[in-house]
Amino acid sequence: MYEFVRQLYPICRSITGNGVRETLRIIGQRVPLQIREVPTGTKVFDWTIPREWNIRDAWVKDPSGRKIIELRNSNLHVVSYSVPVHKKLSLPELKKHLHSLPELPHLIPYRTSYYQATWGFCLSHNQQRELVEGEYEVFIDSSLEDGHLSFGEYLLKGQTTEEVLLSCHVCHPSLANDNLSGVALATALAQLLEGYDRRYSYRFLFVPGTIGAITWLALNEDFIRQIKCGLVVALVGDRGKLTYKKSRQRCAEIDQAALHVLGHSGAAYEVQDFSPYGYDERQYCSPGIDLAVGSLTRTPYGRYLEYHTSGDNLDFLSADALEDSLQAYLSILHVVDTNRRYRNQYPKCEPQLGRRGLYSELGGQSDGKELEMALLWVLNFSDGEHSILDIAARSGKPFAQLARAARLLERAGLLKESMEREEIRGVERPIESGG
Amino acid sequence: MYEFVRQLYPICRSITGNGVRETLRIIGQRVPLQIREVPTGTKVFDWTIPREWNIRDAWVKDPSGRKIIELRNSNLHVVSYSVPVHKKLSLPELKKHLHSLPELPHLIPYRTSYYQATWGFCLSHNQQRELVEGEYEVFIDSSLEDGHLSFGEYLLKGQTTEEVLLSCHVCHPSLANDNLSGVALATALAQLLEGYDRRYSYRFLFVPGTIGAITWLALNEDFIRQIKCGLVVALVGDRGKLTYKKSRQRCAEIDQAALHVLGHSGAAYEVQDFSPYGYDERQYCSPGIDLAVGSLTRTPYGRYLEYHTSGDNLDFLSADALEDSLQAYLSILHVVDTNRRYRNQYPKCEPQLGRRGLYSELGGQSDGKELEMALLWVLNFSDGEHSILDIAARSGKPFAQLARAARLLERAGLLKESMEREEIRGVERPIESGG
Amino acid sequence: MYEFVRQLYPICRSITGNGVRETLRIIGQRVPLQIREVPTGTKVFDWTIPREWNIRDAWVKDPSGRKIIELRNSNLHVVSYSVPVHKKLSLPELKKHLHSLPELPHLIPYRTSYYQATWGFCLSHNQQRELVEGEYEVFIDSSLEDGHLSFGEYLLKGQTTEEVLLSCHVCHPSLANDNLSGVALATALAQLLEGYDRRYSYRFLFVPGTIGAITWLALNEDFIRQIKCGLVVALVGDRGKLTYKKSRQRCAEIDQAALHVLGHSGAAYEVQDFSPYGYDERQYCSPGIDLAVGSLTRTPYGRYLEYHTSGDNLDFLSADALEDSLQAYLSILHVVDTNRRYRNQYPKCEPQLGRRGLYSELGGQSDGKELEMALLWVLNFSDGEHSILDIAARSGKPFAQLARAARLLERAGLLKESMEREEIRGVERPIESGG
Repeated sequence: MYEFVRQLYPICRSITGNGVRETLRIIGQRVPLQIREVPTGTKVFDWTIPREWNIRDAWVKDPSGRKIIELRNSNLHVVSYSVPVHKKLSLPELKKHLHSLPELPHLIPYRTSYYQATWGFCLSHNQQRELVEGEYEVFIDSSLEDGHLSFGEYLLKGQTTEEVLLSCHVCHPSLANDNLSGVALATALAQLLEGYDRRYSYRFLFVPGTIGAITWLALNEDFIRQIKCGLVVALVGDRGKLTYKKSRQRCAEIDQAALHVLGHSGAAYEVQDFSPYGYDERQYCSPGIDLAVGSLTRTPYGRYLEYHTSGDNLDFLSADALEDSLQAYLSILHVVDTNRRYRNQYPKCEPQLGRRGLYSELGGQSDGKELEMALLWVLNFSDGEHSILDIAARSGKPFAQLARAARLLERAGLLKESMEREEIRGVERPIESGG
Repeated sequence: MYEFVRQLYPICRSITGNGVRETLRIIGQRVPLQIREVPTGTKVFDWTIPREWNIRDAWVKDPSGRKIIELRNSNLHVVSYSVPVHKKLSLPELKKHLHSLPELPHLIPYRTSYYQATWGFCLSHNQQRELVEGEYEVFIDSSLEDGHLSFGEYLLKGQTTEEVLLSCHVCHPSLANDNLSGVALATALAQLLEGYDRRYSYRFLFVPGTIGAITWLALNEDFIRQIKCGLVVALVGDRGKLTYKKSRQRCAEIDQAALHVLGHSGAAYEVQDFSPYGYDERQYCSPGIDLAVGSLTRTPYGRYLEYHTSGDNLDFLSADALEDSLQAYLSILHVVDTNRRYRNQYPKCEPQLGRRGLYSELGGQSDGKELEMALLWVLNFSDGEHSILDIAARSGKPFAQLARAARLLERAGLLKESMEREEIRGVERPIESGG
Repeated sequence: MYEFVRQLYPICRSITGNGVRETLRIIGQRVPLQIREVPTGTKVFDWTIPREWNIRDAWVKDPSGRKIIELRNSNLHVVSYSVPVHKKLSLPELKKHLHSLPELPHLIPYRTSYYQATWGFCLSHNQQRELVEGEYEVFIDSSLEDGHLSFGEYLLKGQTTEEVLLSCHVCHPSLANDNLSGVALATALAQLLEGYDRRYSYRFLFVPGTIGAITWLALNEDFIRQIKCGLVVALVGDRGKLTYKKSRQRCAEIDQAALHVLGHSGAAYEVQDFSPYGYDERQYCSPGIDLAVGSLTRTPYGRYLEYHTSGDNLDFLSADALEDSLQAYLSILHVVDTNRRYRNQYPKCEPQLGRRGLYSELGGQSDGKELEMALLWVLNFSDGEHSILDIAARSGKPFAQLARAARLLERAGLLKESMEREEIRGVERPIESGG
């Protein structure tokens, strides 16, 4: 994953344009991505697909004619969606178009102006302080024209058409943790899940933040109810502890699963309640959509100093943290995919486990045997109401142990899966990629 | 308010009689009070309006003929509702009619005997201990005759006929905190609210404790459902911290509002669960009435040493505390009056705030802007279920900020007030005062 | 109770056989027990009544011919349900049939093999370590033949046919706390309750663990809904603190009552959530039965070192602990039996307590009178929804005080018992003992 981040890092991405296209093309080398192009001007709910932005070159020359800011050194130097400009101006005039961070003087900030036609440069505050009076020359060779918004999706089919959504944003330029870490993790996850048995189908979205998620939802509105749950994948490569942000529904199965996995991980973690801010969970959890979509990050949104600056670079990432995050995603999805609700077929008193080979033969021993306890918990609470995950929460036992007990009991004819609550099955859907 | 308490302090009040009438007359100089007189013998639920009690003079002379206890020195000296008496008796006989507080020997207790025909005097324990043997002369020039129970009410009309009730008791003689502080605060509140926009109508009751509240409820039984919520105003002038006692319903809007205001005040405060004791919330929250009426006091009922003694005097009050209490009442009523439930008109994904001028133009900045967050919270939870106060509780943000965000969003056409839950509108009611 | 335990201690009990019969006969000397015999092979839910096991003698002789293990020294020495055997074997062969506890080397473990035909001996680890090489002789004179499973029950009739179940297991051999303490307590409870007024009927079950409870439930399936609640009586004689394990329903009336009594006892106690392990609450709380049956023990199941060993002997018991446990059972059952739900007949405002002699005549005293407060709590919350136990939980007041207040109010015509929720009345049932 770290190498994949390194490969994608130099590309100058924005919410539209060739940077996103190139990024999707490279992801497509690893998973069979279906790429969609939505024309400028298309209405998507309350929004309209903006004009496509591309940039070829940009620089600022100081009074001596030396290029002191250059796009080719860092694509954070130019405010994203800057309109073309080429003119000379005084330092005070120039400063109206410069952005820096006095409190982090060595870092270049990341700025955008998607829906307001302007231009600007970003630079470190140290550099800005050294600018001398005189006439500067600015040049931005960009275009803002009718074109398309690009996004990629990949559907890994499972036994059912119910889907688990994994969404990451692909609109940030050279920022490593936000969100190339998410792009790399989602790609690796897609590759790994291909090799697993899957009850649910898994849909991976690689979309520009906000407008991309809104576009996808608007284009798939009729289909949304087929999505069982999901996770927004972002900020998964820093050295901070894992943080789960709940869905708006607060105690959906995905929330339960994430809390269970983190709670039994043995590592430090944090849980945040839902708030209508952050990444695309804002859209997935808007009141008229209200999907069970949470977000698993490491240090959350806006809570590290290097956030949205040139400090969010390759050195900021840890390959170990990426791997640890991937394992957590796999565990949570495994719980969701294998969680079941059963009905005990012998609910009156305990069934006799001994003659079915499910119980140790010699009674009277006081040392509790973990699996036997798991069998009893599953039998007692498999009343069609409690899922294995519910039983895990009530008993404090690990999901894996209870799920194993349930499989043994099912094989012995003592349990049957209860389908009553699973009405959401949905229809086959046209747009999809093979698995 | 402190001056108003000083003005009312010398009057000898009881649950009926000229003391209450004189008190209501003086309140009527500040707000256009409607005074009601209910005849002795009127049935009010399980109770009957008692005979009217008035007292002109009372004293005790010691064996040397010196007046040692005199009503004119303190109207706490006579047990309220004492029947007339004039006789001579020995010290042991006299003592059966004397009340003092051994544990607070310098204070005169406050005692009543409304429903049991007897007479008595109250005095400090220090004084009682010095009484010498011999023949005493007691004299109480009182009358207990058919008459009326008097109370005052004032209705300040709002845009709707739904009412907020503010009730205080006016039956205690020279006790400053209990409850002249409440009388003064309710009067000031009525004067202030007159100058405000009001969605709800505000009804102020100045009633004798227990029998007065019961009388009002019995006379207005059909009308009770028009009362949205209310507060019992008492004990608001001492130096203790504010204490909110919840309504029997426990989480009514008035309870939420009080907890929000106190929780965001920055000052220490206390919250008590409902209990069927205290002041007239006992009646308003009886099971067959069950109004959403809480009570905001400072040190609560019976929890200060000077409670129901001559120590509850003008020195015990603090003008600053009165003012602080008034501000808390205003804030709570403001929250109740302006709390709304909205429905987001663009519930699918976020509406585009930027083109409506509701969002900062330059993206990418990591410093959370408070108002923008408030806008997002209000949009996300305005699903017709959550009120602004509910959103305040869920987000931890101040009500005022969220209410401001809601107004901006409503103006931009993004929110509409949701009326679904407000079925209680009620009928016009005959008895009322102008506003 | 201690003496009764001492009397029952030497008997060699198992889940069937003469040991249980003898135990039931002795209990029957104290309470008029009805003894039931269920034939081998009878189907009881998923189980079948096993063959009856009886044992007359058993020993092991060492290579020198000395009896080193003898049933007559301790009936724990033989694995319960051992099949007959008489043969000579080497030490390694013998060891496959020996059970000891390396971590508690001085104690003999208790082992059973009800549903697997085998034989075995238990001994202290100290003794096992000293066994020398050579040829041993083992002898078990037991029989495993068609016969019966025996259990006893006793119904103490009350004013209604709704029943409270008290169940204890009678299948353990010489173990004092587990469960002769429970047998003795249940017997004493039956004798004591005979002298009390009883709203409910009380059914005492003396059954072999697991198979006995299952048998009783299977034979009485139609009748189960007549059982209001119950307690499993076990482990009530050790010196640990009282522990209440909740029913599967978690907040049934019996759970509320137990928590109330323990919470107001002033002594240390522990509350455990329900788990599908332990004693016969496993059967009573299986999902298809789901009775409101909790369990009150002292140190719980498996949590003391001597558990299921020869260390659980007469010295391990405390007569004081037994008495303290009995008092707790009596208190909990008293709460359940006298708990009522009332409806205030004067729900609009407070009724006038003074003229009914329920209120102190002289008002104004600030010292709260406990009974008056109890009267007010009961009046305010007797809305047909809250029981006295609910009011106790909400007010924090002792049940006894509130129940007394309710009786006074009922006598004064202010309350009426609310029957609305008590639909479960049930039919007369054939099998029962006189009371």
